Amino acid sequence: MADVITTEYRLATEPALKSFVSTVLAKVGVAPEDAAIVADVLVAADLRGIESHGVARLESYYVNRIREGQLVAKPDVQTVRETPTSLLVDAGNGLGHPTAKRTMERILQKADTSGAAFGAVRNSNHYGIAGYYAMMALDRDTIGIASTNSVRYGAPTFGKDVLLGTNPLAFAIPAKNEPAFVLDFATTTVPKGKLEVYNRKEKKLNPGWAIDAQGNETLDPQVALKGALLPLGGYGTDNGGHKGYGLGLLVDILCGVLSGGASGNDLPLPSDPPLPGKISHFFAAFKIDGFRDPEQFKADMDTELRAFKDSQKAPGHDRIYVAGEVEYEKTLYNREHGVPVHVKVWSGLEKLAGELGIPFEIEK
Amino acid sequence: MADVITTEYRLATEPALKSFVSTVLAKVGVAPEDAAIVADVLVAADLRGIESHGVARLESYYVNRIREGQLVAKPDVQTVRETPTSLLVDAGNGLGHPTAKRTMERILQKADTSGAAFGAVRNSNHYGIAGYYAMMALDRDTIGIASTNSVRYGAPTFGKDVLLGTNPLAFAIPAKNEPAFVLDFATTTVPKGKLEVYNRKEKKLNPGWAIDAQGNETLDPQVALKGALLPLGGYGTDNGGHKGYGLGLLVDILCGVLSGGASGNDLPLPSDPPLPGKISHFFAAFKIDGFRDPEQFKADMDTELRAFKDSQKAPGHDRIYVAGEVEYEKTLYNREHGVPVHVKVWSGLEKLAGELGIPFEIEK
Repeated sequence: MADVITTEYRLATEPALKSFVSTVLAKVGVAPEDAAIVADVLVAADLRGIESHGVARLESYYVNRIREGQLVAKPDVQTVRETPTSLLVDAGNGLGHPTAKRTMERILQKADTSGAAFGAVRNSNHYGIAGYYAMMALDRDTIGIASTNSVRYGAPTFGKDVLLGTNPLAFAIPAKNEPAFVLDFATTTVPKGKLEVYNRKEKKLNPGWAIDAQGNETLDPQVALKGALLPLGGYGTDNGGHKGYGLGLLVDILCGVLSGGASGNDLPLPSDPPLPGKISHFFAAFKIDGFRDPEQFKADMDTELRAFKDSQKAPGHDRIYVAGEVEYEKTLYNREHGVPVHVKVWSGLEKLAGELGIPFEIEK
Repeated sequence: MADVITTEYRLATEPALKSFVSTVLAKVGVAPEDAAIVADVLVAADLRGIESHGVARLESYYVNRIREGQLVAKPDVQTVRETPTSLLVDAGNGLGHPTAKRTMERILQKADTSGAAFGAVRNSNHYGIAGYYAMMALDRDTIGIASTNSVRYGAPTFGKDVLLGTNPLAFAIPAKNEPAFVLDFATTTVPKGKLEVYNRKEKKLNPGWAIDAQGNETLDPQVALKGALLPLGGYGTDNGGHKGYGLGLLVDILCGVLSGGASGNDLPLPSDPPLPGKISHFFAAFKIDGFRDPEQFKADMDTELRAFKDSQKAPGHDRIYVAGEVEYEKTLYNREHGVPVHVKVWSGLEKLAGELGIPFEIEK
């Protein structure tokens, strides 16, 4: 994994980076306990190697929107409906992370008591990586599920309107000695950022990634940036694009419709001015001991995961990973060596520190 | 949809076809109430246009295995563990459909009472279409989920061993005036049968469908038939193949590991002699009124589904479907015009009727 740590990155210590993020958010009016949660979720993404959802977004997604009054620093979070196995929360147009984390915490408590519970949050904002919330189940012998809808980037199968977010789905299932199974994936084939990278590098896209504004598949990143992302499975139905489209719509329903929040046409487009409070989340948890002794289950999980990891490799490959393993190993590595922060992001944070008059001492 | 009804098909009446399937199964020792459930599930698949999971499999998957003593006609079905929100059932190596249907029925009753419930079945067999069980939730203002692992056909990302079934996932969510959202999809890009069809027609496969026995991607169907299917998203990770692999493994865990049944290496390969009782299923259900008034939710579902259906079409396409809509319309059409049964399947059923000495009067 040394290839990740190039000269383009500087290394921060985990506690200092978290503390910096917390201080920034507190400075713009976020309650300290909320700011700490956001910091934990963002830095978890950077530790896991998911830069696009880490501290790189601190200013544009969170700080600026709070400063511009689009997002409420101290929101009025309300429980809308609650039963022993369900929970619906209104995030009051606050930061997504604190309400999402507290909602998943309550869902896990409900699952502890009732065995199973589902939850949703509406009137929220970008909450970072879905996997963070699903993984909260892992040390409780519980299976966790988390999802969120998002700003729209994708088109439905045989459509051309931009209607679907990247709409990630995350599942976390504990094992015994093996790292947990943590599947956290966008239901589009690639994220929008990938088109931007290919555009900068003047590289052709792969088939199955994007369409132009007329709805035809395109390999030209510049054209694709004016079009839409394709769902997992690609264009049309031949390679299963309708399955990815179905999963994306499923997420929009479970998050947006089930919560009574925004969905479909009411979600923001990237070209819109920020429309905060339009994002919704979905969570679920159920206890393993409703089925089996958790220790036996986790031992069997080890056997299952090893069956895949120890199976024969395709030519040119020396490892088979299971979901979440790459991110787990990156986390261990980055905890030891420092959290990699891209030099451009680093200078942005430094500038922000200057503007807000707070110390910037994050370097490892 | 008239293209489905070619001269290669003959049309059966739905009640006569169901009654025929029931009679066949009863004749080989299946209890009449179990036989009726199998008939209902198989004919539902044919009505929905999913021939591969319909009456075409009656003899090879069910009747022959019972006659050869591999599958128990009158199984000893046992509840292994039960809580107000969970249920684990051992199917006693019987037909998958009756135990799956009764387990989902009990899960729905638990969800009625508790709000949410999860279930699993082990020591079972092929249960037909996963969507059937998820759809049982639809008239109860409940969201239904069903899944099953299967005989192995697919390889993990960067692997070459055949380790994963087609492992379908199904979600059913009710709407008001629109047909319900019913997403039921295999987590491989294509089913094995598609390779066989392409082999017969001497057509090249699409990229992303299959690998050869060495683990290299191949477009040659004959070579692919000795290799493995690729997960949704195709070869490697560039087009999201790791996402489909993750979903396939998720299904194997939720079905096989959670139930304490067979999973991974212990699942049958197509080349194995039938290894019945190795298949496991997973179910979940949760009530909409834990979140919102179901009538408001269903009205909002109509708005959501229409947003996609009414959006602009890509060139050359005049409809955008939502998941389950094609199958819903086929069901309406086939109920009116007759259930299409391929002529080869038809003669097989006729021959079976002769062997078992039962009447064969199914023609519309």
